[in-house]
Amino acid sequence: MKLIKTIAEMQQFSKAAAHHRQKIGVVPTMGFLHEGHMSLIDRAHNLADVVIVTIFVNPTQFGPNEDLAKYPRDFDQDWSLCEKRGVDAVFAPSPEEMYFPDRSAWVIEEKLSQGLCGQSRPAHFRGVTTVVAKLFNATLPDVAIFGQKDAQQAMIIKRMARDLNFPVEIVVAPIVREADGLAMSSRNKYLSADERIRALSISAAMRDAHARIKAEGGKISGIAEQIAAKITASGGRVDYVEVRDADSLEPASAATRCLLIAAAAYFGPTRLIDNILINLD
Amino acid sequence: MKLIKTIAEMQQFSKAAAHHRQKIGVVPTMGFLHEGHMSLIDRAHNLADVVIVTIFVNPTQFGPNEDLAKYPRDFDQDWSLCEKRGVDAVFAPSPEEMYFPDRSAWVIEEKLSQGLCGQSRPAHFRGVTTVVAKLFNATLPDVAIFGQKDAQQAMIIKRMARDLNFPVEIVVAPIVREADGLAMSSRNKYLSADERIRALSISAAMRDAHARIKAEGGKISGIAEQIAAKITASGGRVDYVEVRDADSLEPASAATRCLLIAAAAYFGPTRLIDNILINLD
Repeated sequence: MKLIKTIAEMQQFSKAAAHHRQKIGVVPTMGFLHEGHMSLIDRAHNLADVVIVTIFVNPTQFGPNEDLAKYPRDFDQDWSLCEKRGVDAVFAPSPEEMYFPDRSAWVIEEKLSQGLCGQSRPAHFRGVTTVVAKLFNATLPDVAIFGQKDAQQAMIIKRMARDLNFPVEIVVAPIVREADGLAMSSRNKYLSADERIRALSISAAMRDAHARIKAEGGKISGIAEQIAAKITASGGRVDYVEVRDADSLEPASAATRCLLIAAAAYFGPTRLIDNILINLD
Repeated sequence: MKLIKTIAEMQQFSKAAAHHRQKIGVVPTMGFLHEGHMSLIDRAHNLADVVIVTIFVNPTQFGPNEDLAKYPRDFDQDWSLCEKRGVDAVFAPSPEEMYFPDRSAWVIEEKLSQGLCGQSRPAHFRGVTTVVAKLFNATLPDVAIFGQKDAQQAMIIKRMARDLNFPVEIVVAPIVREADGLAMSSRNKYLSADERIRALSISAAMRDAHARIKAEGGKISGIAEQIAAKITASGGRVDYVEVRDADSLEPASAATRCLLIAAAAYFGPTRLIDNILINLD
C-alpha cells in the first residue's frame, strides 16, 4: 500500500493507473475509520481495479465554533485498517498541501445545501464541495463512494459532479449501524457512556416512524414532531428533524415516492446526524 | 477534424487520446474566431499532440443587460478556420447540454474577480470559472491556452486551476492586434467605421503610457487619469482604467516589478477591453 502526501504525486499515480486502463475508485474520508468506511472501501473494490482512500480532516468544512481541533485522528490505526482491506493507496495530504494561504477559488452549491445541516452549519457544504472537487482532481477517479449517513452531503456531491461535469460516477452506500442501531460515526467517540445510550433515541425514533408511515399508508403529518419529541425526551437537543423528498430534497409532498427523514441532535456537546429512506411504492 | 457535441463523447475522445499517451491541449472560445484565437491554437499545437477547440457562447457569463443574444456567431467560418489550423476536434455543445435547468453548483473566485471587469460585470467571472471548470472536465486537457487580452480572466483561471487542483497547465498567450493597434476581439464586429477609429484611442493611450513610464523610470502617478482622458477625448465612455501589479492584481505599489495597465471603455453600445504589461526591471 502506497502512502501519498502530495497532489502532484497523487495525480501521477492515478494517471499511471489510467494508462494501464485500470479503473480507479476513491473513498474520501476524514480518517478515524470505522466499519462504515470499510463498507465504502469494499464497495470501491467491487467497482474499481485500484482503490484510493483519502484521509484529510478538511479545515474549510468546520465552522469557527466547531470541533476541528479535537476531531479524532489516528493515522496508524487508519493505515492498518486500509492495509487489511486491500487499499492500494492512501492519500493523506497536509492542510498546507491542500490550501494556499491566499486561496480564493471555491466550489459552491446553492440549492440542496440550504436547510437541514446547511442551516446550522452555514459554511460547511462550501468546504465540502471545494475539498471534494480538489480530491477528485488529485485522485482522478472513475468512481467515488460516499456514505448515505451524510445524506445531504451525498446529494450535494452528486449535484456538483453533474453540474461541473466531473468524469466521476458517484455511488452512495447504505448507513452502517452498531448492533444497537446507532449510526456509525467518528464523532461517536465523543459520547460518554450515558450519552451513548441516550443517543439511541434518534435511530429508535426513526425506526418507529418508518413502521408508523408504512402502517398508515404513507401518512407523514406529525412524524417529524414525534421523532423530535422522542429525542428531546431522551435528553437530546434537537437541531432539526425533517421529512423530505429523497430525490429532490424538497419538503415531502403528495408526489413523493421516496421519503428521506433526516435528523440532527446534540447529546452533550456532540452533534450527531442520522437519516432513513422510506420507499412509498 | 471531429465535431463533438456531447460531454460524454468529449470525455471519451480525450480519455482515448490519454490512453495513447497523447498530450491534450484545449483552446476554450466563444467562437467567431479571429487571428487572436488562431495564435492560441498555434500555441496549443506547440504544447500538445491533440488540439481541441471549444466553441460555446456561455450564457452564464453574460449579465441580464449584456449582449448574449446578439453575440456574433458564425459556426461555418469557425469550423473552416479550425480545419485550416489543424485542429483535431471541435467541442460545440448546446446550452442545454451544458446547463441543466436546475443547475445549482458553481465555481467562484472571490479575490481576483473583485474590481476591474468584476465591478461592472458582477456575475461575469462566476460564469467564466464555472464554464471553464466544466470545459476542463469535458475535454480533460493537459494544457489550456487563454489570451492575455482578457488579463483578469486569465489570472482568475490560473487561480482556479491552482486552488481546485485541476491537472491542467494554464498558458497565457500575448494579445494579437490589428495593424493599427486595436486588440482583436469578436466584439470589434459591433463597431461602426467611426467607432472603430475612435476606439484606437485605447491602445494608443496605452502605448503612450508605456513610453512615458519607461522614460520616467517607472513613475505611474497620473497615468490612469491620462489614459482615461485620452479615451474620453476620442468619444469613448470609460468604464475603468487601472494600474495594477501584474502578479497579484493588487493596485501597483513600490514593490511592483511588472505593471498591468487595464482599461475598459464603451464606444457606442460596445464595451471593449485592452491591457498592457510593463516590465519595470
